[in-house]
Amino acid sequence: MSTVQVLLRDRSYAIRIVPGGLGELGPALQKEATSDRAVVITSARVARHHFEALDQGLREAGFDVEKLEVSDGQRCKTLRTAGRVYDQLAHLEIGRGTPLIALGGGALCDLAGFVASTYLRGLPLVLAPSTLRAQVDASVGDRNSLHHRSGNNRIGTFYHPHLAWVDPQILETLPQEHMRSGLAEIVKVAVIWDEEFFAWIEDKVAGLLAMARDAVREAVTRAIQIRVELIGLDERRVGLRALLQFGERLASVLRREHPALTPGEASAMGMLFAARLSRARGWIDDAACQRLETLLRKVGLPTAPPDWSEQREAYLRAVADDKKEIQPLPEWVLLRALGRAERVELPVQELFSEDA
Amino acid sequence: MSTVQVLLRDRSYAIRIVPGGLGELGPALQKEATSDRAVVITSARVARHHFEALDQGLREAGFDVEKLEVSDGQRCKTLRTAGRVYDQLAHLEIGRGTPLIALGGGALCDLAGFVASTYLRGLPLVLAPSTLRAQVDASVGDRNSLHHRSGNNRIGTFYHPHLAWVDPQILETLPQEHMRSGLAEIVKVAVIWDEEFFAWIEDKVAGLLAMARDAVREAVTRAIQIRVELIGLDERRVGLRALLQFGERLASVLRREHPALTPGEASAMGMLFAARLSRARGWIDDAACQRLETLLRKVGLPTAPPDWSEQREAYLRAVADDKKEIQPLPEWVLLRALGRAERVELPVQELFSEDA
Repeated sequence: MSTVQVLLRDRSYAIRIVPGGLGELGPALQKEATSDRAVVITSARVARHHFEALDQGLREAGFDVEKLEVSDGQRCKTLRTAGRVYDQLAHLEIGRGTPLIALGGGALCDLAGFVASTYLRGLPLVLAPSTLRAQVDASVGDRNSLHHRSGNNRIGTFYHPHLAWVDPQILETLPQEHMRSGLAEIVKVAVIWDEEFFAWIEDKVAGLLAMARDAVREAVTRAIQIRVELIGLDERRVGLRALLQFGERLASVLRREHPALTPGEASAMGMLFAARLSRARGWIDDAACQRLETLLRKVGLPTAPPDWSEQREAYLRAVADDKKEIQPLPEWVLLRALGRAERVELPVQELFSEDA
Repeated sequence: MSTVQVLLRDRSYAIRIVPGGLGELGPALQKEATSDRAVVITSARVARHHFEALDQGLREAGFDVEKLEVSDGQRCKTLRTAGRVYDQLAHLEIGRGTPLIALGGGALCDLAGFVASTYLRGLPLVLAPSTLRAQVDASVGDRNSLHHRSGNNRIGTFYHPHLAWVDPQILETLPQEHMRSGLAEIVKVAVIWDEEFFAWIEDKVAGLLAMARDAVREAVTRAIQIRVELIGLDERRVGLRALLQFGERLASVLRREHPALTPGEASAMGMLFAARLSRARGWIDDAACQRLETLLRKVGLPTAPPDWSEQREAYLRAVADDKKEIQPLPEWVLLRALGRAERVELPVQELFSEDA
């Protein structure tokens, strides 16, 4: 087991990377428990593969376990679903000390975070993310969000988990497109922050896609460390967290236009476009741009939407007007080198540069 | 103008008591504003009397003002109303720095607090409470709550206001029953914490009911100070905040059974019952009990529900089983003297004592 300690605002918590260790969450929680009950919020699909191991460990540690199922994916991130979960928690007479354990992907972790922060003004939140993307992203967090009819991710709270429990082996039951999507996130933290890690991924990409256990564990751990480092450093030097927005502005426009894109596919397209903008202003050379493109292709991610040549101008216009982001970023994130991103105020004409 | 500074957790804010000063909120906000817009959330009834003064001050200070109206009273404390307010905020393209100003009673302040804490993960919250009860209660707060079909006050967040703006003169447009309800809250903080203030209220009760400006201002200021003191001290010595629960367990049962009771009426009955329990165990004498009863009567509050003699046993049984409270309090709050309350584990048979 390895542990990454997260120090955010006034609270801290541990992210434990525990391959094959879903059953050990119960004993770990039990040490500091103030309740002999635990609620697991999950989806039917994830529960089918992983609930039993988690449940057994919790019961052996003395917890009475309640399971709540919500629908998979982005659909669960609504006030309506939160309302239904409140009903169930009330019906079960869940009190303040009872941990709410999220076993699921990033959307489910968001829903659980919102519910945990608002039900009786706060239940202890335990995250057990079940996708690669959520393991390296949702596990490192002090915030959550829900969609609302007026816009995505408009509602949310700041709320720290009590513990995050990352078992990379549970990824082995996922379809490969989930791995590709998560690898996009891992490539992102590498390309903005750690050239050595980027080179390591280039070397291990086949193993990662084949779910080689050592490689996956190492990639997950390093990606979490980088994210914690960026967010932690951001407490003092404002702006590093913003580097994680690398490629995300175009990605968010593309996801709106092509709802079938996975987050990783949209990210890959956004990252490559941002890399080309960096090349257009002479910050990186063509070889660096090419390395990113080659790696993304090896992961199996597309590097531009099929209608890019016709729709490019319309997409970029949408990016330039995009006021709908929850985190307004007037500036862009570009690359000085592989592994070194910087925030920059991007003149709008550069966005439309022919060279990008 | 007098100011009470609130230091809670990691943040602090000011409560300003400003008789006739609703129009000065704009200039005060303007000094530290990061937005040139302001949103006022209020009800039609309150807006009719007080919006104009607030609006004019905000506009003179350079704010573009948006007004959102919600229904009055407890009915507004729902996720559904919160959802409608999110819609309106999104439609108006309200961004992160824009203050949300609550002009209304305690329920509206709760709704506004929840919305402010969850919309884009946080707008600055300004409270301008329009009832006596809310001025001495909602103004001093680090939390909010909504009702849910599964139970009252089940949903909520911890969230500090940016500023509370208390204008006792706006109470002059209220029906007297609101004054009585607010005075119950003021009597409560006096009887649990400050015997001298209790005696002062006994002396001034006629003036308070007649809305004598000096007396009302002084009562509001002192009640806020006591609440801030209790909650502030509680950060170190856990338990003082719980003194504010004096009388509230029976009060909450009575309000469920008699929805037409005002919070103050229910509180008055709960306080007197708790005083009698204190007398039954010899903590206070009959004279003290009598002084509380006389004062509550002078305020115009009932001291027992009409069906007390028949239903007493049923009510107390409901109190003994009451697990629905948001703040579980296994122990009771009783009086050692007028102005000195203490937490105590109350054996259930004492609850049913013939002498209480």
